[in-house]
Amino acid sequence: MKRRDFISGAAGVAAATAAAASFPKPAIAKARHQWIVTTAFGKTGLLGDNIANFAKFINKAAEGRLELKVYAGGELVPPFEAFDAVQNGTAQMGYGAPYYWKGKSEAIQFVSSMPFGLTAQEQNAWLYFGGGNEISNKIYNALGCHFLPLGNTGNQMGGWFRKEIKAAGDLKGLKFRMPGLGGEILGSLGVTVVNTPGGEVLSSLASGAVDGTEWVGPALDLGFGLYKVCQYYYYPGWHEPSSITDAFINLDAWNKLEDDLKDLLDKGAQAYNARLLAQFQANNNIALQKLIKDHSVQLKYFGDELVGVFRKRADELIPEIAGKDPLSKEIYESLIAFRKTMVEWSNYSEAAFMQSRV
Amino acid sequence: MKRRDFISGAAGVAAATAAAASFPKPAIAKARHQWIVTTAFGKTGLLGDNIANFAKFINKAAEGRLELKVYAGGELVPPFEAFDAVQNGTAQMGYGAPYYWKGKSEAIQFVSSMPFGLTAQEQNAWLYFGGGNEISNKIYNALGCHFLPLGNTGNQMGGWFRKEIKAAGDLKGLKFRMPGLGGEILGSLGVTVVNTPGGEVLSSLASGAVDGTEWVGPALDLGFGLYKVCQYYYYPGWHEPSSITDAFINLDAWNKLEDDLKDLLDKGAQAYNARLLAQFQANNNIALQKLIKDHSVQLKYFGDELVGVFRKRADELIPEIAGKDPLSKEIYESLIAFRKTMVEWSNYSEAAFMQSRV
Repeated sequence: MKRRDFISGAAGVAAATAAAASFPKPAIAKARHQWIVTTAFGKTGLLGDNIANFAKFINKAAEGRLELKVYAGGELVPPFEAFDAVQNGTAQMGYGAPYYWKGKSEAIQFVSSMPFGLTAQEQNAWLYFGGGNEISNKIYNALGCHFLPLGNTGNQMGGWFRKEIKAAGDLKGLKFRMPGLGGEILGSLGVTVVNTPGGEVLSSLASGAVDGTEWVGPALDLGFGLYKVCQYYYYPGWHEPSSITDAFINLDAWNKLEDDLKDLLDKGAQAYNARLLAQFQANNNIALQKLIKDHSVQLKYFGDELVGVFRKRADELIPEIAGKDPLSKEIYESLIAFRKTMVEWSNYSEAAFMQSRV
Repeated sequence: MKRRDFISGAAGVAAATAAAASFPKPAIAKARHQWIVTTAFGKTGLLGDNIANFAKFINKAAEGRLELKVYAGGELVPPFEAFDAVQNGTAQMGYGAPYYWKGKSEAIQFVSSMPFGLTAQEQNAWLYFGGGNEISNKIYNALGCHFLPLGNTGNQMGGWFRKEIKAAGDLKGLKFRMPGLGGEILGSLGVTVVNTPGGEVLSSLASGAVDGTEWVGPALDLGFGLYKVCQYYYYPGWHEPSSITDAFINLDAWNKLEDDLKDLLDKGAQAYNARLLAQFQANNNIALQKLIKDHSVQLKYFGDELVGVFRKRADELIPEIAGKDPLSKEIYESLIAFRKTMVEWSNYSEAAFMQSRV
């Protein structure tokens, strides 16, 4: 094995010094980038852990050339002000969910997840090899940020309700937390939709200010304690078949990075994007069974009829929303074209296989 | 933004030299590891590209401290001798598919993919958060190697046939290429199973030495030209619902690495594991449609009855194979327990969602 020390002993040091002195920019004189990272999530739990672990990996791999210091939502700025903080340079990087920044851009909601859109595996295919990253970055670049997908929850649950939902009529008049395009669809069915930050969800349910909420999936929802205030847990997560958590980086800070550090962030994000999905996938059913057995949660299917109502409203409303501005239109058309080929392929692969093993 | 040069100008160099001289192991005097990587695949195509891109990423990120030099199958040693080469130290790392090394270990086949086992997303959950990596590494460690999953093909196709397969009886007497546990099942149904390396598959089909083959999925099979010799393309890939491509590293070489380089390889592999899956997922249907439209390939479903025969044989034969040695038993039991919870969860998530969007 050809293993040798780059520099060893006094002779090596002398040689290195001579080399360093004869060039104006020696290899060791690289810039150090110190970044503040602010998140829309709490310090603990799967999402807080994901950004903390990502930062730890990057800090070690970059050997001091790039340092990420992470602040949880509220430590530096409130959770939903993370994007502002990155735009105005208070932080260099933020972490949250694209649809949290809907106030900045209608199109950004489509980056999160599209109701009846793509599964996590399909969404990754779209992001990395289907033009998804490019069109998403058009949206983020217009807001002065660079986008990196840094996590996926996988298929979410349909939501927590205090009462049974048997038909569309049962939704009317409910006050329900649901961000993104799913919320727009519920809104069109007579629901008063609110977008409460995570930290306030439980208290607003307890006080009766809100009647129900979607959150993520069992692996996260169990620790969040939603079973204490809601009994009924609905599937499937038609509104978020796979939700991205986003890293957004101040464009000036991104542009100052050397290419190898950009690549390290990019591939590091891909690793932690995959890890978060794997973690949700591994823990969801274990947590779901605990919710059912230990906390008497009732697992319910929305039913074919109600799912049909959601789908019909999605088919009507989403193209309408997408038609309002050019970036929304572009990302919507990209997603729809990609979904067509994914649905076809899933018939011969995942869906056919899942059927075969039953 | 606090951006500063670590060392700049002559004063900086002098200070660095002083610091280096006063400590026996200065930060810049880290070891350089130069590794030879040998693969079981060709230089081109998705698999050859994946290991080449992974190596490029690592070489850049490690800044010269770890260098991977990749040789395609046959360049240094024949494809199926990659594992020997890593064991005997000719190479430090190899890249292939776990079931290629069946001659070394019965248990290693279970690392690839188990017939009627896990989807790619479920397999990643098992690997990273369900004990899969640990039990797989027990198997590789016993062979003197460290294992890193470095790619997933996703759900494969059931295979290429020259004639229609309508019932189990049509399989009898066929000479068919299928490695791994799927091959054992076909063998028990009267098929003569062969394990031809990729480079010889097309010629042995053309010469009539083999009647058919499974390969991977449309994205790879199109360029491989199998449509030239086989007309019928079957789904689903019950035998390989998601197949891992493996990196295996000589244990001595692995143990000599500094912890941060181990972590870089680990997370880099996770990124490229996810990338390969995304690439297959993005390209499979496009390639499948080309096979059908441009090359008159006939896409066929095995049919519920034949799938039932395969499943019954799998249920009988796989526990029997797994019972032969303790490592096979351990990995099989881990997979079976994990599959149980995955099948349950998929009913409320992926499967329910895929159904909802139809």
